[in-house]
Amino acid sequence: MRMQKIASGIWRIRLGRPEKLTPVRMREGSVRHEALARMPSPGSAPYRSSIFRTCLTARGFIIELPMGEDEQIFGFGLQMKSFNQRGLKKVVRVNSDPVADTGDSHAPVPFYVSTRGYGVLVDTARYAAFYCGSHRRVRGAPGKPRSPGMMIEIPNTGGADVYLFAGPTMRDAVQRYNLFSGGGVLPPMWALGVWYRTSMYADEQLVRAQVAYFRDKCIPCDVFGWEPTWQTRSYSCSYRWDTGRFPDRDAILSHIAAAGYKTNLWEHAFTHPDAPFYRAMKPLAGDCEVWNGLVPDFSLPEMRALFAGYHGRELVDRGVMGFKLDECDSSDFKTPPWSFPDHTRFPSGMDGEQMHSMFGVLYQRTMAGIFRQRNLRTLGQARSSHALAASLPYVLYSDLYDHGDYLRALVNSGFSGLLWSPEVRNAGSIEELLRRVQSVILSPHALVNGFEIRNPPWLQVDVAKNNRDELLPDRREAEDEVRRWFELRMSLLPYLYANLARYWLDGVPLIRALALEWPGDEKTWKISDQWLLGDGLMVAPVIWPARKRTVYLPQAAGNGDQASGWFDFWTRERLPGGRAIEVDAPVDRIPLFVRENTILPLARPVQQVERDTVFEITAHAFGQSPAPFVLFEDDGWTYDFESGAYTLVRLSWEGGRGEVTRVNARFPGERYRVVAWESIGR
Amino acid sequence: MRMQKIASGIWRIRLGRPEKLTPVRMREGSVRHEALARMPSPGSAPYRSSIFRTCLTARGFIIELPMGEDEQIFGFGLQMKSFNQRGLKKVVRVNSDPVADTGDSHAPVPFYVSTRGYGVLVDTARYAAFYCGSHRRVRGAPGKPRSPGMMIEIPNTGGADVYLFAGPTMRDAVQRYNLFSGGGVLPPMWALGVWYRTSMYADEQLVRAQVAYFRDKCIPCDVFGWEPTWQTRSYSCSYRWDTGRFPDRDAILSHIAAAGYKTNLWEHAFTHPDAPFYRAMKPLAGDCEVWNGLVPDFSLPEMRALFAGYHGRELVDRGVMGFKLDECDSSDFKTPPWSFPDHTRFPSGMDGEQMHSMFGVLYQRTMAGIFRQRNLRTLGQARSSHALAASLPYVLYSDLYDHGDYLRALVNSGFSGLLWSPEVRNAGSIEELLRRVQSVILSPHALVNGFEIRNPPWLQVDVAKNNRDELLPDRREAEDEVRRWFELRMSLLPYLYANLARYWLDGVPLIRALALEWPGDEKTWKISDQWLLGDGLMVAPVIWPARKRTVYLPQAAGNGDQASGWFDFWTRERLPGGRAIEVDAPVDRIPLFVRENTILPLARPVQQVERDTVFEITAHAFGQSPAPFVLFEDDGWTYDFESGAYTLVRLSWEGGRGEVTRVNARFPGERYRVVAWESIGR
Repeated sequence: MRMQKIASGIWRIRLGRPEKLTPVRMREGSVRHEALARMPSPGSAPYRSSIFRTCLTARGFIIELPMGEDEQIFGFGLQMKSFNQRGLKKVVRVNSDPVADTGDSHAPVPFYVSTRGYGVLVDTARYAAFYCGSHRRVRGAPGKPRSPGMMIEIPNTGGADVYLFAGPTMRDAVQRYNLFSGGGVLPPMWALGVWYRTSMYADEQLVRAQVAYFRDKCIPCDVFGWEPTWQTRSYSCSYRWDTGRFPDRDAILSHIAAAGYKTNLWEHAFTHPDAPFYRAMKPLAGDCEVWNGLVPDFSLPEMRALFAGYHGRELVDRGVMGFKLDECDSSDFKTPPWSFPDHTRFPSGMDGEQMHSMFGVLYQRTMAGIFRQRNLRTLGQARSSHALAASLPYVLYSDLYDHGDYLRALVNSGFSGLLWSPEVRNAGSIEELLRRVQSVILSPHALVNGFEIRNPPWLQVDVAKNNRDELLPDRREAEDEVRRWFELRMSLLPYLYANLARYWLDGVPLIRALALEWPGDEKTWKISDQWLLGDGLMVAPVIWPARKRTVYLPQAAGNGDQASGWFDFWTRERLPGGRAIEVDAPVDRIPLFVRENTILPLARPVQQVERDTVFEITAHAFGQSPAPFVLFEDDGWTYDFESGAYTLVRLSWEGGRGEVTRVNARFPGERYRVVAWESIGR
Repeated sequence: MRMQKIASGIWRIRLGRPEKLTPVRMREGSVRHEALARMPSPGSAPYRSSIFRTCLTARGFIIELPMGEDEQIFGFGLQMKSFNQRGLKKVVRVNSDPVADTGDSHAPVPFYVSTRGYGVLVDTARYAAFYCGSHRRVRGAPGKPRSPGMMIEIPNTGGADVYLFAGPTMRDAVQRYNLFSGGGVLPPMWALGVWYRTSMYADEQLVRAQVAYFRDKCIPCDVFGWEPTWQTRSYSCSYRWDTGRFPDRDAILSHIAAAGYKTNLWEHAFTHPDAPFYRAMKPLAGDCEVWNGLVPDFSLPEMRALFAGYHGRELVDRGVMGFKLDECDSSDFKTPPWSFPDHTRFPSGMDGEQMHSMFGVLYQRTMAGIFRQRNLRTLGQARSSHALAASLPYVLYSDLYDHGDYLRALVNSGFSGLLWSPEVRNAGSIEELLRRVQSVILSPHALVNGFEIRNPPWLQVDVAKNNRDELLPDRREAEDEVRRWFELRMSLLPYLYANLARYWLDGVPLIRALALEWPGDEKTWKISDQWLLGDGLMVAPVIWPARKRTVYLPQAAGNGDQASGWFDFWTRERLPGGRAIEVDAPVDRIPLFVRENTILPLARPVQQVERDTVFEITAHAFGQSPAPFVLFEDDGWTYDFESGAYTLVRLSWEGGRGEVTRVNARFPGERYRVVAWESIGR
């Protein structure tokens, strides 16, 4: 066993005989060495190679590592049921409908971080089980207390590469993991606006009515999403336009684009015999069917070319700007099970277990490639992901809907290089709906999914009545409330975009658990219902029917020298850090806090983002010595920023006045115009 | 691949390289050849050996078998969530709290039967997955309909023995499986009476009060069960009597016995350092702890001798008549997980996966051996079981409590040689409680478990109030109702005992799904909420808050020549078979039906079964040409019946009068006295 340095602050140890088909070995895109080199020097690896204990068994390969008595463990991807993983068992197994805290997830990731300031990635596409200090080995004298360690069992393999990510802090380890993954994704600017998905029963008339609705009512909306019905067949998929329902494909797509929306199309990858490329893909598919369709082996370049080629020509070149990739997880908890068996054989040599782990990532890559080829950025949705996915332009979603679970998933997503949307579908009441809206607009993806309903949910929360067009009497008030929240989202776009640029540049996740930011503060170890949204905002959402809640305000030092407090976003009141407070949260308020010494840029909300949109910004300087804030200015549309075609717009507040400085001014246009400054709490 | 005949109607095919540690290879007790030979000649094996397709992969071993278009599949042990398994995936993985229809169960069994009249046992202790026609392989022309087959994936092995059980009927296959397992268990007669488990907070005073209660109120009760508190330590277990709480062990045990009860003690097998044999067992235990205790390797004779020796000397020889074996399943759906990891290593060479599958069976064997050594029959409870368990004197139970799931488990139990109790704990109302009581007294095990409450649940259903001794005002009426149901149970004892004797003699399960009895009748394929209780009774339970239900009455031919109908147990009305009826079920009625041409012996209820109890029986002859009914007469106490020390008491009705004939009269005593005859529906 030899520890090999892979990049600055990243080491690999090869244990046993690793497999060939693993996330790292199948990766595309490259390690962001230049960004890693910018990070503080990490010193030595978190573990010596001699500390790893391994064992080969009939079941697979076991790795054991010691854990400290007070060490806390976070990560494992999109976990909905638990947060701090110490004492728990997590099996990283892809599944659509996890019903218990087993580790099963749409996007399980064999990566964890520790409050001791390191990260561990086990490079496997197997359903590895992580026993995070849940069990002690029998040894030593009875009764003598010993801290249990981390035990990892990787089934069906004779070994694995383990990657270690240095700190010194847990967040540094996460950044290194994200940079190792290729850096975080920077979505196109329009994708940060509001998304609306239309009814699964939509026809031409409904689509046109909904397209008109948002504009008529001045409700911001950037993306119009279609559910299955655009195709002639959807379970499995034909990928053929349903001209019975929508006679003129190009006309309707142009109509939507002309109204300022980007079009997103639902699909999944199980391919119906009616699909034009069905015969060609047969030798490139797995040997078990799903819904009588073929399962593409997206690890094969030929398969990807076939799938992407068709989608590019027939859909993207007609104006489609993104896709929703459904059903790419698995289905062990569903009756009957629908996804391919774990023992399915694929022509690449992968089996169903490996393919389930990788399917979401491979599918995302296939579809993202269509846009990259055209130097167009996209943002889509995907129901599955796995390791090393930070750079992929997809946001996870689910058919589950518990609000608490959705928020826990959001808070956890930042540990593993994932984006997640706590999407809004419907609710039992307008109040409940508004609580969902408040959460989603302060997440990476402001998505309302009306797939079940003919009218937006705020016009009628009851699904049956909604579909009979029996709208609520007080729907205009609800509409006004929703518009207000969507406008808040739109005003946050430059701020969000700047933070996502940091995700790309430095690997700092947009959504961060309090424990990720303040791992030394024990009180943060159990808080899974608050998150940092970028560097300057902290969100403390309210779950219906609550109208107040406890909020923990950490000692917010780190953004400036004496900084240790927060400002209430709504009242501007300064609140000292290092304590929990009770806050009232009437229906029209989500508890939201600005970190002391933050400059928060808020834009005048636009209805939708165009290629030439210029944001008119008011810069709000909170605290006595605000740290500069850097906006990221580029075309918001292409990948040219990757070649340096961007400008850093530095907002600073010194000597009682604000200043705007453009650094690295390599983007020729202007996206941001600072029209006013405000100083709060000086 | 060679098909080898193992016994009459049973074949083995060795596929790949089977493992050594499997249910069949670790079996004890012998195949019941003499009983198998009594069955109708089976002809040839259900499959030719050439029909098996197998494949060795990195994950394990795959076996494929064809399935007919209309073939229905049942079995896989104690499944709670589904009944007809066609189209489903079942993983036979031991788990305490399955939350979805995954196959996980307290007692999963890698055995299934088909409506085509055969059974298949895959001899593995691995978590095998059975895809019961849920997926089609890709082959042939697209769109051409092909029936999907059975795909079995056994992880972590290079092969397995598959045992085939001939029909001609599905029930024949089940009987052969049970006889291959050693034959069904015949419990001691007292174990068929009512069981009551006392509060987990019980002290000497409460135990004495409860012991007195049943006798004072003339409520039948045969077994008094203790929960954890008899021990000084219970998580993990010390197995030491808690003399703080119960100062004189022998005195209290004698007191209970003197009042006519049998004592049953709760425990589990995870052994606390305080246990007297802790040090001795350390080299005989697994290498991971549970609750800081050791996990015994019960596959080792030394370990069994240690554990059984202590229990025999200290508890059984003091009068304890049985044990409740808790926590012997596994805990994947619990947070945190408590049972030993799947990768635990045991000194026998078993790993945690194999041990989880076998742990319940091995623990049962260990404990059953204590009693067999003393020629005493026992019946205990166990929370886990697996293949070939039919002859073990244990009834399964659960901490789950959904009434519908409990009844589905009951109906499924008969496919796999298991006994199960839909135990009564508490309820939201007296009506709900009575519905539970009605189900449980018509099951193998009439158990009320008051572990959470100080007073029997019918005195107060609210747990908190019950524990404050705030009893219901109308508790006496509830008590009267419960007494009535318990008396019905006691009147059924000779009937139940006779049917369990058939389980032992011929392998016919006591509890049978309608599909098991009438597999040719498609309507039975989905009925999981009715069961046959022995040959003559059909139970159609009511789940609160229903007060009526649909009951399917099959064409009940088979018990006599023209037999095709049923009698309502309560009204004695004759009901033609082959149709569904709506029945009213007021709170004081559970729909219960007697098969036409059945002689049903009902006893005058006793309070408890003594060694010399003689049952006074009224024989009820239903229909025009009742088939004889055979009572099983023995000491009801020892294993002497296995050496032939029993008498068959044949009740027949011919020429307008009943007759009692004693056949094989090798039991010297008399247990049954027929005091009256009644003829119904002549």
